[in-house]
Amino acid sequence: MILILTPNIDPDSHSYQQLMAHLSHLQDIRLRVHREQGTEQTLTEIYLIGNTSSIPVDEMKSLPGVERVVRVSEEYRVIGRHRDDHRPSHFDYQGLRFGQDTLHVFAGLCAVDTKEHVELMMQALRDHGQVCTRMGAYKPRTSAYSFQGHGRDCLPYVFELAGKYGIKVIAMEVTHESHIDEIHEALHGTGYPTGVMLQIGTRNTQNFELLKIVGRQQEYPVLLKRGFGITLTESLHAAEYLASEGNRKIIFGLRGVKTNMGDPHRNFLDFAHVPVVRRLTRMPVCIDPSHAVGSRTAGPENILDIMHATAQGVISGANMVLVDFHPAPNRALVDGPQALLLEELPHFLEDIQIAREAYEQRVALATRYHVSETA
Amino acid sequence: MILILTPNIDPDSHSYQQLMAHLSHLQDIRLRVHREQGTEQTLTEIYLIGNTSSIPVDEMKSLPGVERVVRVSEEYRVIGRHRDDHRPSHFDYQGLRFGQDTLHVFAGLCAVDTKEHVELMMQALRDHGQVCTRMGAYKPRTSAYSFQGHGRDCLPYVFELAGKYGIKVIAMEVTHESHIDEIHEALHGTGYPTGVMLQIGTRNTQNFELLKIVGRQQEYPVLLKRGFGITLTESLHAAEYLASEGNRKIIFGLRGVKTNMGDPHRNFLDFAHVPVVRRLTRMPVCIDPSHAVGSRTAGPENILDIMHATAQGVISGANMVLVDFHPAPNRALVDGPQALLLEELPHFLEDIQIAREAYEQRVALATRYHVSETA
Amino acid sequence: MILILTPNIDPDSHSYQQLMAHLSHLQDIRLRVHREQGTEQTLTEIYLIGNTSSIPVDEMKSLPGVERVVRVSEEYRVIGRHRDDHRPSHFDYQGLRFGQDTLHVFAGLCAVDTKEHVELMMQALRDHGQVCTRMGAYKPRTSAYSFQGHGRDCLPYVFELAGKYGIKVIAMEVTHESHIDEIHEALHGTGYPTGVMLQIGTRNTQNFELLKIVGRQQEYPVLLKRGFGITLTESLHAAEYLASEGNRKIIFGLRGVKTNMGDPHRNFLDFAHVPVVRRLTRMPVCIDPSHAVGSRTAGPENILDIMHATAQGVISGANMVLVDFHPAPNRALVDGPQALLLEELPHFLEDIQIAREAYEQRVALATRYHVSETA
Amino acid sequence: MILILTPNIDPDSHSYQQLMAHLSHLQDIRLRVHREQGTEQTLTEIYLIGNTSSIPVDEMKSLPGVERVVRVSEEYRVIGRHRDDHRPSHFDYQGLRFGQDTLHVFAGLCAVDTKEHVELMMQALRDHGQVCTRMGAYKPRTSAYSFQGHGRDCLPYVFELAGKYGIKVIAMEVTHESHIDEIHEALHGTGYPTGVMLQIGTRNTQNFELLKIVGRQQEYPVLLKRGFGITLTESLHAAEYLASEGNRKIIFGLRGVKTNMGDPHRNFLDFAHVPVVRRLTRMPVCIDPSHAVGSRTAGPENILDIMHATAQGVISGANMVLVDFHPAPNRALVDGPQALLLEELPHFLEDIQIAREAYEQRVALATRYHVSETA
Repeated sequence: MILILTPNIDPDSHSYQQLMAHLSHLQDIRLRVHREQGTEQTLTEIYLIGNTSSIPVDEMKSLPGVERVVRVSEEYRVIGRHRDDHRPSHFDYQGLRFGQDTLHVFAGLCAVDTKEHVELMMQALRDHGQVCTRMGAYKPRTSAYSFQGHGRDCLPYVFELAGKYGIKVIAMEVTHESHIDEIHEALHGTGYPTGVMLQIGTRNTQNFELLKIVGRQQEYPVLLKRGFGITLTESLHAAEYLASEGNRKIIFGLRGVKTNMGDPHRNFLDFAHVPVVRRLTRMPVCIDPSHAVGSRTAGPENILDIMHATAQGVISGANMVLVDFHPAPNRALVDGPQALLLEELPHFLEDIQIAREAYEQRVALATRYHVSETA
Repeated sequence: MILILTPNIDPDSHSYQQLMAHLSHLQDIRLRVHREQGTEQTLTEIYLIGNTSSIPVDEMKSLPGVERVVRVSEEYRVIGRHRDDHRPSHFDYQGLRFGQDTLHVFAGLCAVDTKEHVELMMQALRDHGQVCTRMGAYKPRTSAYSFQGHGRDCLPYVFELAGKYGIKVIAMEVTHESHIDEIHEALHGTGYPTGVMLQIGTRNTQNFELLKIVGRQQEYPVLLKRGFGITLTESLHAAEYLASEGNRKIIFGLRGVKTNMGDPHRNFLDFAHVPVVRRLTRMPVCIDPSHAVGSRTAGPENILDIMHATAQGVISGANMVLVDFHPAPNRALVDGPQALLLEELPHFLEDIQIAREAYEQRVALATRYHVSETA
Repeated sequence: MILILTPNIDPDSHSYQQLMAHLSHLQDIRLRVHREQGTEQTLTEIYLIGNTSSIPVDEMKSLPGVERVVRVSEEYRVIGRHRDDHRPSHFDYQGLRFGQDTLHVFAGLCAVDTKEHVELMMQALRDHGQVCTRMGAYKPRTSAYSFQGHGRDCLPYVFELAGKYGIKVIAMEVTHESHIDEIHEALHGTGYPTGVMLQIGTRNTQNFELLKIVGRQQEYPVLLKRGFGITLTESLHAAEYLASEGNRKIIFGLRGVKTNMGDPHRNFLDFAHVPVVRRLTRMPVCIDPSHAVGSRTAGPENILDIMHATAQGVISGANMVLVDFHPAPNRALVDGPQALLLEELPHFLEDIQIAREAYEQRVALATRYHVSETA
Repeated sequence: MILILTPNIDPDSHSYQQLMAHLSHLQDIRLRVHREQGTEQTLTEIYLIGNTSSIPVDEMKSLPGVERVVRVSEEYRVIGRHRDDHRPSHFDYQGLRFGQDTLHVFAGLCAVDTKEHVELMMQALRDHGQVCTRMGAYKPRTSAYSFQGHGRDCLPYVFELAGKYGIKVIAMEVTHESHIDEIHEALHGTGYPTGVMLQIGTRNTQNFELLKIVGRQQEYPVLLKRGFGITLTESLHAAEYLASEGNRKIIFGLRGVKTNMGDPHRNFLDFAHVPVVRRLTRMPVCIDPSHAVGSRTAGPENILDIMHATAQGVISGANMVLVDFHPAPNRALVDGPQALLLEELPHFLEDIQIAREAYEQRVALATRYHVSETA
């Protein structure tokens, strides 16, 4: 059960004190308070954890300072979309809004290799009006003997170049808690020229210790990728780990599932789950067509499978696209064969635009029919 | 290797006789001749089967009556799209064109239950300008004790009602060769008021005996569903079975794959394979969002998952949509919970129209970029 | 609900007539009578189909001619093992007993290729005391252009050689109803020198039309392979199709599941389901290690993976082993690479013997502990 | 390429110095030296990393101090079993030998809950001659709101009780590097009454940062569980991560794969991979029947599926069995429904004994046939 308090309630106020005193008498119920500092107001939510089935909603609603009560019917207490749940499905970061109602493209390098490539990439993004990118410094690789990313060494120049070309947010995978500190130091050392979205990769979706640590900080938003060998439910539980520790700025990423039933694609594309995640939770949904498809094959219309996959995700409401580009794919150290070319960027962006407009038309159509139906 | 002969070549002509005489001397090579009677011309193809790697293309090209030679690099000799392969990717039936460049919606009853429901369905289709439908008379069911369809008994009234409401093609699953005869008799008995597309369901994708029999007749086109537990390659080989027996009027149907990784959907949606099938073969591609999704859940925009899935398929080039509707889903004998309501038909059709237009815009965009690239 | 009548009850008797008269008055309940002619007695079972939940067991028990009543709690009415269900878990064919308490090895050729190879195989079996074999005349192949088996042409010499070498039962896949007639004719034509167990392969597990036809005849027992892309439950429902048509001589075959998670084996071995099938149903369970493993790789102890897989199945109670041998694997037309050599037959049989003895010791141990526990 | 040096070679010796000087001149080749301190001798291996294909084996063999050269044909450099590879397939810990030729049972609590239960468990083990156990202090759970283990707090009493009852090795999952320190401190604090085998669970199989840290220490051996949604190859690469950092005391654990094709078992049992891992690598192989099966269902012989699964693994050469027991399963905080009862311990151990003896007979049989074959 979640009690949503009146906005800007002061923890020192009498009503707040009274409320907490009352709640502390509930038997076998633990309390967890979450305070979200917005630009205009501070929201306070109190989570009642334990067997709350016998606690009447009405009684809770009548307590001082309580504005609304949400009975949590699903297991995703924090990230879930419950009955009569009007909690927001968006957050702000670096002046950008990330929500179930927005769309951002994060084109960039799968792995940082040279400073020159980073700069060419950033420049191309700037030239096409983009303010987000992906850049991998820490790369988890199946084999112990493969290139593992340049790590902390590349961070300063990556951040400085981002600042130079107006990039506001870089999605960057972390595989160990120390990476957050390293990112923090590098951002500090370079004067915060850009922002970072921490990415938890598919191999770490159930690395709960990492999730807890990333969830405890609230500075950086988190992109959590679905685990490639677990059910959607299990991956959503992993997102709840992040949220339960305090960080609500979470984007959920679909990237395909591991099974040869998806051949010839590298993974079995799961973008049909875009509307499912949007329905079950309040998280914006990201799609990663590059890793899902894994190659540059194209259909008879000269459209790459990666573009078709992207269009499929976007027309059903995807809010973020993570995609690999490279100025010279044959010299890329990681996943070169699936990278798009810089000269393909405008085509890719226009193709997305068509799909996004189609999505918006579909929403308008559905609204029209829904209104007439319920009128 | 395929020799494509000059159109309308006469098997009694001297050049044809010379050609065949020459070919008959090729060591360890079997010949298979396929003749396709079109509305304007007759095309003749000769398949050279065996180890053809040592046969020079140029020599074959110079033989009398040979217009073009296609070296088959892939295993899908007949259905495949080979290098320099300009064989058609469409066919005509009942005055309609089914091709990789067209789109047809087959909305209808999963299973025929009552004559009244059939008529209500047909009427709704006619009222919304539809000329195709799906109607199941023979239903393969997991349990021996479930309703197995009304079989031959319902065929006469189904066909007559189709004629009454201007329905030109009914997609209908067959699970035994005798069903083709029964359909044939019923069409004959009712004066051919409509046409039938024979559907091979996912449980029979590798029922090779049935494939061979269905492939040997050329009167009815065939919709072959992907096997839900086999790879795409294996399912395409099954389509080749049909084609190798003579019937080239084949549509390949995607309907999801069986694995709990697709939960909460009934199957794991595989519509990302739409462009793959279009690239590897010359078959039009059908999607079956009803069986893939399996429920009427809707996202926060009040759009059903079934509609999202449909839009995903159509925006990437799907050519046919097979979808369950029912006038009274709670009284349906098979798969009621996933059926759309008759009053949802216009919304569904308009939603598809948006996705189809987006697809066409995407093709135009790709063509523009491709032309400028190769210019 | 199943009524098991007193043995040898005469359908013309007064008590039988009374019973049937009474049952015919039950509302919305259909009756299905199954009569099993054994060597010593005739058993009669009456299946009450429909909503039987409101019919009291006691009332049914008190009806004339009724010996016992089994309330069917599971969906597998006929093949299932229900509470207080003492129906037999074995059948006899050609003087051999096939039951959950026996073990038979069916070593032989995956596909009949030459008469010479058939004879070499049969001779080796005779020399090592074997009276069962596998011999494929009809081979379903993924590609339309692969060898499809010699079909009816090879049947006469296969059966005659079987007779010559004392082989009593040949497991033989059928993929079309006409194959049963062909087998019947060939057995008749050669004077019934041997017997045949009809095998339904994994691609036809849900070819319900074939199941019904095979189920309707009671002359030949049936080996039904699990579907390689469906759940165990769905495959057991397929076995129920056979049984519901009248044939109860069914052996259920495990042969692995299709997924790359089983690599480097050709399929993912599912022999852990041996005890599950034995618990849920009364069918003897067959394992097919050759197709499951798919290669001749061996571990550090010089034991082939195929032998390890066999031992795993046998130590947990498998009742039949289907295994590919070939006198000259490199000349085999189908699945040569996985075939064992004739000279490996004694090793293979002794290895099985060790595992079977271990199984028997395990059963004795469990019985000892169970008795002391419930004493 | 691996150079295996003469045993006990002194790094200060002239020959060693000469060797290293020579190797340092190889172009684009990095060296990695691994020294293994055994009870009787010290083994030194030098790994040549880079493109070694042009380096002649003979030249390397002739270098001072080199006893043998192994050209690494597979990707598993350290853990792999290469051609002419006689490196050991066992290690010693706490006076016990863990090898591909031994078998140890680790029965115990899935999760430590109360001190009383720990003591009851240890006592039962001692009473039945067992010196190993499993005890979970850190439990990764799908839901953030489930019990996560007692953590460091329970370690002192667990270790002390182990010492009291003669338990030499406890398998214990760690999910964060800090857990190793905590275990270290608790062992130190209690005077090292027992030993610990660090377990990496299936959710962390590709948590490469954790693998590297666990691999860098050589005090505790490691049990690495297979990732439940990745291929076997990928999991073996994860084991190579551990080994490449220096720790060679690795046991590889099979515990089933996640897919509903394994229903009604909780996971799809993969014990057919026991001989595969033994063939591809030099690691002993552990099976975890409790988590794989996930329930206490029993077959008609009153043998639990968990016991059948165990027998399957052991008869094909498994070297370790990890199994859940509990004195009061209905009061267990984690995985109670799958736990065996303390009174079932003797039956379980005797059942394993039967399967182990069968395995040994099978090895003797194979050796006999192999000798006669190659004689």
